[in-house]
Amino acid sequence: MSEHTVTAYDDELNVMAGRIAEMGGLAEKAFAEAVSALVSGDTELARQVIDQDRRLDALHQEVEESLIAMIVRRQPMGQDLREITAASRIANDLERVGDLAKNVAKRAIAIDNDIQNKKLAIGVEHMTELALGQLKKVLDAYTGRNAEAARQVQDADAEVDAIYTSLFRELLTYMMEDPRVITSCVHLLFCAKNIERIGDHATNIAENVFFMVTGERLPEDRNKVDETGAV
Amino acid sequence: MSEHTVTAYDDELNVMAGRIAEMGGLAEKAFAEAVSALVSGDTELARQVIDQDRRLDALHQEVEESLIAMIVRRQPMGQDLREITAASRIANDLERVGDLAKNVAKRAIAIDNDIQNKKLAIGVEHMTELALGQLKKVLDAYTGRNAEAARQVQDADAEVDAIYTSLFRELLTYMMEDPRVITSCVHLLFCAKNIERIGDHATNIAENVFFMVTGERLPEDRNKVDETGAV
Repeated sequence: MSEHTVTAYDDELNVMAGRIAEMGGLAEKAFAEAVSALVSGDTELARQVIDQDRRLDALHQEVEESLIAMIVRRQPMGQDLREITAASRIANDLERVGDLAKNVAKRAIAIDNDIQNKKLAIGVEHMTELALGQLKKVLDAYTGRNAEAARQVQDADAEVDAIYTSLFRELLTYMMEDPRVITSCVHLLFCAKNIERIGDHATNIAENVFFMVTGERLPEDRNKVDETGAV
Repeated sequence: MSEHTVTAYDDELNVMAGRIAEMGGLAEKAFAEAVSALVSGDTELARQVIDQDRRLDALHQEVEESLIAMIVRRQPMGQDLREITAASRIANDLERVGDLAKNVAKRAIAIDNDIQNKKLAIGVEHMTELALGQLKKVLDAYTGRNAEAARQVQDADAEVDAIYTSLFRELLTYMMEDPRVITSCVHLLFCAKNIERIGDHATNIAENVFFMVTGERLPEDRNKVDETGAV
């Protein structure tokens, strides 16, 4: 393969990585804004999040099509093929993060007022900060091809899960104490679950970054269970 | 391209379709058994469903790898490429159906007794029958390359959503009437949501089958909203 061809290929890979970074930026923004809409009761912002998900979906489709076109043209093997399959899976996870953010935005409209219970709002915001931090870190790990940073993201998912479990229990307690808050609390439960799943997608991305960089699989994440199953 | 090559390629596509049918069979079985475990309180069956999800995941990974290998070898265009991308997306949806079934199975263990409220059990079973029917129909549409059948699956998703909405409202009512059932009802709510999402995956598959066969996109599904957002 000539030097020129290699350079053109590297350019293509860079363009692809740039698009995935753009998807990552949109997904992060949607997630942060959806939770902000939920906590503040800003239904206008929630509607914007819902509308903007189309851009992320369209970008995802473009990325998928370019990846297939690259495979057809380049017939990549080994590291190059890992690079492309990782990109495809990461794009898939980011599209799902966008969907989950959209779900939170829809619930923000359904609840239709701010979270009056400030303690609950703090729990949701704390969980969001952590999950958003995971998402940022793993996108940096992807851009910087940093396997060690990816491993750390996988490790830290347990924290997001722990907050989810405590929030779940707290919400159940409120519902038992005051039946009037049941409907709002159910919506919040679904929101919390969506946020926890955004953390899972950050972990998936971490596993793909690690594999892309090293060619090795990270050990399965710690026997992951939704501990609320045991409540 | 020689006749021989075309035949070999067709064989490869058939093998692929066979594997996807196998994934479909596993996903259907997991879904049916998870709900059966939930309704009857059979935790042993629930554990089997959770264990068996690994087979579906492994099969998914095999399918993905073979699809990429086919693209590398065959450099498909037009219809052939549509066939391969559809297979990839359908495999993805079936893997997700398996995950959702596994989630239901985990909740079946968490609830740890049968659904004492028979009316609720009937609602869950009815919704499952419909969603399972959708999944079977769309897998037949894929195997039979039947665009019209795929369109019908897309149309019928509204029924699954309607049952979900009514089940959601019923569960909220029970929780308000009797705080002692709140924990079980929350698990059931999540189960119902998982089943509704299995219906969504059947719809996604329908859209991919339609595109694979006709090269045209089905119009977006009716302005889909989770109506429980409005409760």
